[in-house]
Amino acid sequence: MTNIFPCKIFDSMVRILGKEIFKTTTGTPFLIPTTGTGAWESALTNTLSPGDRIVSFLIGQFSLLWIDQQKRLGFNVDVVESEWGQGANLEILAEKIAADRAHTIKAVCIVHNETATGVTNNLAAVRRILDEYRHPALYLVDGVSSICALDFRMDEWGVDVALTGSQKALSLPTGMGIVCASPKALEASKSAQSVRFFFDWNDYLKFYKLGTFWPYTPSVQLLHGMRAALDVIFEEGLDHVIERHSRLGKATRLAVEAWGLKNCTQREEWFSDTVTAVVVPPYIDSTEIVKRAWKRYNLSLGLGLNKVAGKVFRIGHLGHLNDLQLLGCLAGVEMVLKDVGYPVKMGSGVAAASSYLQNTIPLIPLRI
Amino acid sequence: MTNIFPCKIFDSMVRILGKEIFKTTTGTPFLIPTTGTGAWESALTNTLSPGDRIVSFLIGQFSLLWIDQQKRLGFNVDVVESEWGQGANLEILAEKIAADRAHTIKAVCIVHNETATGVTNNLAAVRRILDEYRHPALYLVDGVSSICALDFRMDEWGVDVALTGSQKALSLPTGMGIVCASPKALEASKSAQSVRFFFDWNDYLKFYKLGTFWPYTPSVQLLHGMRAALDVIFEEGLDHVIERHSRLGKATRLAVEAWGLKNCTQREEWFSDTVTAVVVPPYIDSTEIVKRAWKRYNLSLGLGLNKVAGKVFRIGHLGHLNDLQLLGCLAGVEMVLKDVGYPVKMGSGVAAASSYLQNTIPLIPLRI
Amino acid sequence: MTNIFPCKIFDSMVRILGKEIFKTTTGTPFLIPTTGTGAWESALTNTLSPGDRIVSFLIGQFSLLWIDQQKRLGFNVDVVESEWGQGANLEILAEKIAADRAHTIKAVCIVHNETATGVTNNLAAVRRILDEYRHPALYLVDGVSSICALDFRMDEWGVDVALTGSQKALSLPTGMGIVCASPKALEASKSAQSVRFFFDWNDYLKFYKLGTFWPYTPSVQLLHGMRAALDVIFEEGLDHVIERHSRLGKATRLAVEAWGLKNCTQREEWFSDTVTAVVVPPYIDSTEIVKRAWKRYNLSLGLGLNKVAGKVFRIGHLGHLNDLQLLGCLAGVEMVLKDVGYPVKMGSGVAAASSYLQNTIPLIPLRI
Amino acid sequence: MTNIFPCKIFDSMVRILGKEIFKTTTGTPFLIPTTGTGAWESALTNTLSPGDRIVSFLIGQFSLLWIDQQKRLGFNVDVVESEWGQGANLEILAEKIAADRAHTIKAVCIVHNETATGVTNNLAAVRRILDEYRHPALYLVDGVSSICALDFRMDEWGVDVALTGSQKALSLPTGMGIVCASPKALEASKSAQSVRFFFDWNDYLKFYKLGTFWPYTPSVQLLHGMRAALDVIFEEGLDHVIERHSRLGKATRLAVEAWGLKNCTQREEWFSDTVTAVVVPPYIDSTEIVKRAWKRYNLSLGLGLNKVAGKVFRIGHLGHLNDLQLLGCLAGVEMVLKDVGYPVKMGSGVAAASSYLQNTIPLIPLRI
Repeated sequence: MTNIFPCKIFDSMVRILGKEIFKTTTGTPFLIPTTGTGAWESALTNTLSPGDRIVSFLIGQFSLLWIDQQKRLGFNVDVVESEWGQGANLEILAEKIAADRAHTIKAVCIVHNETATGVTNNLAAVRRILDEYRHPALYLVDGVSSICALDFRMDEWGVDVALTGSQKALSLPTGMGIVCASPKALEASKSAQSVRFFFDWNDYLKFYKLGTFWPYTPSVQLLHGMRAALDVIFEEGLDHVIERHSRLGKATRLAVEAWGLKNCTQREEWFSDTVTAVVVPPYIDSTEIVKRAWKRYNLSLGLGLNKVAGKVFRIGHLGHLNDLQLLGCLAGVEMVLKDVGYPVKMGSGVAAASSYLQNTIPLIPLRI
Repeated sequence: MTNIFPCKIFDSMVRILGKEIFKTTTGTPFLIPTTGTGAWESALTNTLSPGDRIVSFLIGQFSLLWIDQQKRLGFNVDVVESEWGQGANLEILAEKIAADRAHTIKAVCIVHNETATGVTNNLAAVRRILDEYRHPALYLVDGVSSICALDFRMDEWGVDVALTGSQKALSLPTGMGIVCASPKALEASKSAQSVRFFFDWNDYLKFYKLGTFWPYTPSVQLLHGMRAALDVIFEEGLDHVIERHSRLGKATRLAVEAWGLKNCTQREEWFSDTVTAVVVPPYIDSTEIVKRAWKRYNLSLGLGLNKVAGKVFRIGHLGHLNDLQLLGCLAGVEMVLKDVGYPVKMGSGVAAASSYLQNTIPLIPLRI
Repeated sequence: MTNIFPCKIFDSMVRILGKEIFKTTTGTPFLIPTTGTGAWESALTNTLSPGDRIVSFLIGQFSLLWIDQQKRLGFNVDVVESEWGQGANLEILAEKIAADRAHTIKAVCIVHNETATGVTNNLAAVRRILDEYRHPALYLVDGVSSICALDFRMDEWGVDVALTGSQKALSLPTGMGIVCASPKALEASKSAQSVRFFFDWNDYLKFYKLGTFWPYTPSVQLLHGMRAALDVIFEEGLDHVIERHSRLGKATRLAVEAWGLKNCTQREEWFSDTVTAVVVPPYIDSTEIVKRAWKRYNLSLGLGLNKVAGKVFRIGHLGHLNDLQLLGCLAGVEMVLKDVGYPVKMGSGVAAASSYLQNTIPLIPLRI
Repeated sequence: MTNIFPCKIFDSMVRILGKEIFKTTTGTPFLIPTTGTGAWESALTNTLSPGDRIVSFLIGQFSLLWIDQQKRLGFNVDVVESEWGQGANLEILAEKIAADRAHTIKAVCIVHNETATGVTNNLAAVRRILDEYRHPALYLVDGVSSICALDFRMDEWGVDVALTGSQKALSLPTGMGIVCASPKALEASKSAQSVRFFFDWNDYLKFYKLGTFWPYTPSVQLLHGMRAALDVIFEEGLDHVIERHSRLGKATRLAVEAWGLKNCTQREEWFSDTVTAVVVPPYIDSTEIVKRAWKRYNLSLGLGLNKVAGKVFRIGHLGHLNDLQLLGCLAGVEMVLKDVGYPVKMGSGVAAASSYLQNTIPLIPLRI
């Protein structure tokens, strides 16, 4: 009830998370006992009213699910679809923004990193488009599989709501949705008409002022975990964390190439450093790959989802993961590929990855 | 992504939680990554439509908060208020139900155990009233501070939605809202017009059919914790767990009486076995008691909230708590009372409690 | 094999443990994967040769066990016995030392705090006797139930070997014997003829020089635990830790007095602040008290051992324990006393203890 | 003090450890709070007297250390030395046993698996030699890096004392030495004259009879850990655990071969399935390999010790380790080899290992 301890933690957490992880000096973080899906809902219902027109990019399963939520929550969603494996179509965005002299578009919603296809969108470019036309639309970003692993700059890119979950790059258990709102987003929340209660920022803000911080029981254990996770991240250094993801992403792509398989992501500019979706030949069912990896090798790969079901499997490489763990995973993928009849040259992907990594892995600072 | 392990756990969890903890053979449990406040929202938005008339009892801070939610979510709330310290006014309920020939009342909402005042409502009596008038209203129960600690019988009492949270009688970390829906509630969810997405049961039901159980990332760690918590509960035996709470509740009340203080709960029929709200004399600020307990004795008492702020402090006695821990707490309360100038006879409350407990604590089965 | 991480930890550990906990600037600590019994063996076999005359005080079960070890390891033990409940007889020590012009006494062995009877010996007085006669005997001290809870000053009191275990005042799991040797003890180890291998300090010293610190696999997890335990201790402040034990000891003795029972410890100068042995009336079997406490109240009391079997039970109050936990324990003892037919006035001991504690417990610094 | 809980655990532990892990129905296990080095000491001092002649095989650093202990504890050690990389010379044993008509040899001491060189000795063959000459020598076996990972049969092979440590194949923290004594070893302990106290079996046996099991504080946390570790082992099935080690050992050797490096173990009959010592070319210092692995790749390899210092590095593959973890390690070794200038073909070792593993890894039973 008294919430005294969590408050002490929260004081430093809010400063650190905002400034260091989201890279904002003006944003207000909310640490909500929910998942990424709940964080999405929080971003939308606090800033928008039913019927509001929003532009949203459909490029894979997770953007699809967010769009589904946007529709079911009553917004007028102007969907900009790309082929799965491509990034957000920013040309169409530019056209829509240019045409919208009346400012009927209230928000642009984009998934920074589409986990289903391994596509990373160019957030700075979206901001440039909005700025070019001096368009006041709110800029809402799903950073679930990007923030704290990929380069992310809330203030510099003028993001109005950025969100992530505890169980991704922060390497914590599931259960905390982390939402960061710009002053403009907070202003919008004052007039947003969407019905909300559990996800309502106003209740949080009321308790922030009281110094007790939560309108209901917070995830105390996750807050302690967050403090420990941040210690681990800052010991490595966030820049090094991002470099490590970049290295692991490139290593994975080199392996895929060596296997003679195609990356689901169609262009280099969209390559994701946190997840790689691998396209399998038509005669193989990728679901079989994921099942065998789990049942025989204790390896957890991602299924191909929806439009790419059976066609791709996914290798996740985000969070507290090191180079040797990735190489063990790649070796496992090779065995599964052999199991399902793909003529992989054993060791080829590992060799491609390790040849690259051997030259690029830095010394561990505490052990020099 | 594959959710394979959580599914295996879930299979047994759903059966055990429903049958053993909620005591229903027909209800469907939902284990939602949220808090009790989110569980409330889930119960309401899945079964009701904006504008629906509901009867809701205001008897303390937590019922007040739920009513606030009910109003903000757009329902037409017919509030039945009692003095804080009294239980739900069932005579007024009977009148309203009797008068409602047109069945405009869509739901009756009640908090089983009001944590702010230590009042336990008579759930069987509510059912008898509804049955007497053959009224079809849904029966929604907040069991946050009761289920798994107080006697609770979902099927026998015809409860349509019952809910609790992981961090109360189950003694887990915060983060899981547990909601159980009767077939009638599930039926209602098909036509309920409330806007919902994160809390939508239909998404859960869709995944139940698929055998993957969750529409988004579940609280995997809490599911493992739940299994461990249920092991602990069933080792003691749920009946013994309930008896233990009954014993701890009575012991606490005997201590309060010995101190010459008043129980905030006005009648024995409403006495709560999970929390006791103690009224302090007018010349003492109960907030001071809670602060000193925390700062000097490492004792976490509950503040008086809202109408009883400054007037009561609360002793929680639910969850994985034993008799000696309670006695230590009561001894701590005596020291704080002395600190703030109340002329307590040191040891008096402990003596009253321990004299009763000494005759009633059973042997620990595994140690006989 | 590389032992790199434990070494980094050890570096700071050795400095902190020696300087802050043992209060020595010249002593060398050894962190041995063993128990207190192994630490005893390490102290004896590294400094003495078979047949060496040693003076050892028998005042209770733990000093008896150590003497048993001393005899079985082949030393010529000159036992100075006291009635159980009394401290070491220092007058007889003084006589023996005075008479020993030939310096045939090679060591004086004393248990700082006899856990079986709750007797704390006066270590400074032993040193004064040795100094008075300029006697070169080594001074070996069992500090298992004292170091880090009672005032202990290795350098000031000229202790040559001091030892404790991880599972006592340090509040860690069992498994680490901590032995600290003075330069004089290290010098003695060069000529000591006792057969030893596992407990041999020379192997440790060899690895200290190499910078790898352990001659065999160390208790890595306990070393991490030690670092955490020291954090907790230093956050409270060692002086405050010692004051807390003093407070808990006095509170316990006040309760015993209020119950009308006798402290096994016969004089105030020997009162122990880490354990209290309580004498029961002849018509009660103290074993019954310990059994019932465990089986009915989940309370772990200490049995009366050997000469005081059936006659005393023991209340431990050392380590990470706070005032309310002790009061809960005292309330439990009252219930057990009632169970076994002792006419205790319920609440009397708790009242005596809490009346004293209420005035003396300081505020928790981090919460002020 | 009461030790009640550990006793309950111990009851089942002793049966399971003896019967299932050591494969003896007549042996008596002792769970001692110590390390493997302490377990050695326990085996020797309980069964032998100073001056006793024992035959002991020197084949690497760990057998050397045990022999050092045997000598320093005062036994007359008849050392049978082999070149490092070879197994115990059983022909010489046969000669000595054949010649010893007077039965002056009191014990044969052998390390089952020499961790420094990756050599596994043939324990059944030793027994056959003793039986052939009906020689009554005790048969003492260090099973530290073998028991619970390699095939071990105490009764069938007539082993008199077998020992291991918690931190090896059982995958627990360091701190428990597990010693199992045959009836013949227990009989020998009655007349053994070696000075001992901490490691004395007689004290254990006395407490076994009392039903309290420990003569001093046991490693309670490790006993709980042991129960959990045994659950994990029996869920996989001990036979499958041993098969897994056999598979991992072979995979590692195939990798070494593919790298064009030599196994330190000179003949297939001695290949170890728990550790592989790899010989590096003369122009490379293996210490550099171990250091780089740790500092750059977070990979913990074993140093070359003593005679093979600088010449070999070691890959451990025992305990709770799966195929992909090994492959990640092998990929790491390839990168280090490249770092230090060895012309390794990247991916070659991983390919050799994974080509073999892909055909041999069984499905995980709980996931079929």
